[in-house]
Amino acid sequence: MENFTFYAPTYFSFGDGSERQCGALVRRFGGTKVLLHYGGGSVRRNGVLDKVVASLTDAGIPYVELGGVQPNPRSGLVYEGIGLCRREGIDFILAVGGGSTIDSAKAIAAGVPYDGDFWDYYGTGKPVDTALPVGTVLTIAAAGSEGSPDSVITHEEGMRKWGASGEALRPRFSILNPMFTCTLPAYQTACGATDIMAHVCERYFTNTADVETTDRLCEAVLKAMITETPKVMADLGNYQARANIMWAGMVAHNNLCGVGRAQDWASHDIEHELSAKYDVAHGAGLAVVMPAWMTYVLPHDVQRFAQFAVRVWGCDMDFTDPERTAREGIARFRAFLSSIGMPQGFAALGAREEDIPALAAHIGLTGGRTLGGFVPLTAADVEAIYRLAL
Amino acid sequence: MENFTFYAPTYFSFGDGSERQCGALVRRFGGTKVLLHYGGGSVRRNGVLDKVVASLTDAGIPYVELGGVQPNPRSGLVYEGIGLCRREGIDFILAVGGGSTIDSAKAIAAGVPYDGDFWDYYGTGKPVDTALPVGTVLTIAAAGSEGSPDSVITHEEGMRKWGASGEALRPRFSILNPMFTCTLPAYQTACGATDIMAHVCERYFTNTADVETTDRLCEAVLKAMITETPKVMADLGNYQARANIMWAGMVAHNNLCGVGRAQDWASHDIEHELSAKYDVAHGAGLAVVMPAWMTYVLPHDVQRFAQFAVRVWGCDMDFTDPERTAREGIARFRAFLSSIGMPQGFAALGAREEDIPALAAHIGLTGGRTLGGFVPLTAADVEAIYRLAL
Repeated sequence: MENFTFYAPTYFSFGDGSERQCGALVRRFGGTKVLLHYGGGSVRRNGVLDKVVASLTDAGIPYVELGGVQPNPRSGLVYEGIGLCRREGIDFILAVGGGSTIDSAKAIAAGVPYDGDFWDYYGTGKPVDTALPVGTVLTIAAAGSEGSPDSVITHEEGMRKWGASGEALRPRFSILNPMFTCTLPAYQTACGATDIMAHVCERYFTNTADVETTDRLCEAVLKAMITETPKVMADLGNYQARANIMWAGMVAHNNLCGVGRAQDWASHDIEHELSAKYDVAHGAGLAVVMPAWMTYVLPHDVQRFAQFAVRVWGCDMDFTDPERTAREGIARFRAFLSSIGMPQGFAALGAREEDIPALAAHIGLTGGRTLGGFVPLTAADVEAIYRLAL
Repeated sequence: MENFTFYAPTYFSFGDGSERQCGALVRRFGGTKVLLHYGGGSVRRNGVLDKVVASLTDAGIPYVELGGVQPNPRSGLVYEGIGLCRREGIDFILAVGGGSTIDSAKAIAAGVPYDGDFWDYYGTGKPVDTALPVGTVLTIAAAGSEGSPDSVITHEEGMRKWGASGEALRPRFSILNPMFTCTLPAYQTACGATDIMAHVCERYFTNTADVETTDRLCEAVLKAMITETPKVMADLGNYQARANIMWAGMVAHNNLCGVGRAQDWASHDIEHELSAKYDVAHGAGLAVVMPAWMTYVLPHDVQRFAQFAVRVWGCDMDFTDPERTAREGIARFRAFLSSIGMPQGFAALGAREEDIPALAAHIGLTGGRTLGGFVPLTAADVEAIYRLAL
């Protein structure tokens, strides 16, 4: 195990009706004037926005609205939000929506007190140490942004989908009402579940030895997802299964499962090229990329993939041929993703084989730069993984 | 799953050398003059105290010392600490030690700004909303107090061992250096491991339905303990296994594994009577009480005990006789505790059968009051459990 720090000071209010705490929590964490940030019409149609507004109004907190966040949130709206916050003297940003809305809110929060271009933080590793405080009202279990210090934004110039991170981006509070996720269609629900499982897998495949506690925690989240996701796919209104998935989604990405170990994250970057170019859902892209990545890197550590197969997927260990067990685990993961309606290859994403060289090149693995902590991938490796994903 | 809130804003610095952050962290969390609180001679002998003092000195932070915390920490020293802090204008309490030292520090922290008797918070459910900030340098993986909002103190008047809780008692930071635990003798190490496992079991046995995610997290911590504890017992200096146990001990008790579900905690209260009366180590008392409690309450939910047996202890499910599987799980838990050197009955604790009625009566289950969230226990039930623990 490696040395680490862990600091996750987000206040979670979880359960049906928890959004009534919104106004009081904004006040508790110092907000006096709020930017209410959200996406399209769904939070309006399903009444979530009205409930949040009612709570702010009850608490006497003025707010300014900025809707229009798209999936794979764009820089244009971030620049607009930064300007709006500065003009209006906003001191707290409340995101109502999923990962895209929260990430957009975080980008605005980072940009408001910063003299330069907010994009300086993205793709550069420059930590965000100062930002406006952010709160969230989550409406989809997926990105884990409600408990993470991360934000991913797509810059319209060049369609670069890059991430930023920093302690100041951790939400001050997050309201998790599983009821708000009960109206999500099956496809988005499954995309979210895939994203949650991917967040764990990116941490699970590590070269760090002696990480039994975090291994077991990773496996716990994956097994809970394997049990609960099919329940939701069979009955989209299953509050209890939604609740289990919602908490698992937070635990999957606040880094409790990832501390003290090198992590990978190649699949996320390989997928980001797909969602940036074809505007596919991140989870759907991951469903195609992740098993291909696993197949490609399996020879690097057969025993770890066998552990994944046995402990997570319940495979019997083949002690004479561990690689057969390892491959069986990947096959079960793939079959699980298929069973919840996730795409199985490039064509189902609307992606094209002939774009592969350009996709791989766009990641920018030149000058000896590689991708991923488990197996360092070159541009040629990434191309090969895209081909395995066909 | 039930509605819940979860707020665990402790900053963890984990790993060898992390104590060098001590001074900087006190400063970060607002401390300008520190009460350095510790137990007996061990932190002096093994050099931990010197390292902490060096870090405070480097950061230019003045401090006043108060040593002498005993296992099962006493109210007398708490009163002394409160007076000392007030006289000296202390604004931050730094506990260097294990759960007893941290709990004593929390009690002092609660008492300093409080007009009445600090004991008002103990055993009454009155939440501690205001306290001096506390930091910890942990030297034994056990109590989980480094990440919890709880404190347990024994009042010398009547030897009442009672708990208090409150958001203000969560440490601002905790320094977890597994190296500091490598010098612990086998018996204390095993007592700590038992306490960690008990913290999970108190949460695991619940009547709340639909708690798959937290069930899996509980099982993860228990399985990590089952793997790592024997490694440490075989080689007390095994840093990596010590590190896994240290992180598991925090996760076991910061309530991440316990949110959204009713919890039990009867075994802890039943044990507290033993450690208050005979001054035995809390973990040793739990090793005797917990399997007895399990045996007594098993009929209440055979399937949950079968799940514990199958998922945690790797038992094969006997589908024609789940109770046989359930009993096998308890037997394996007992055998595991024995294998790490924990006592197996009253005599090994120095406890006496003839004291049982008085022990049970001392809990004070009169006027219809019961103990425990899984099965509400009367004084007669508690007596029966003590007898099963003979």
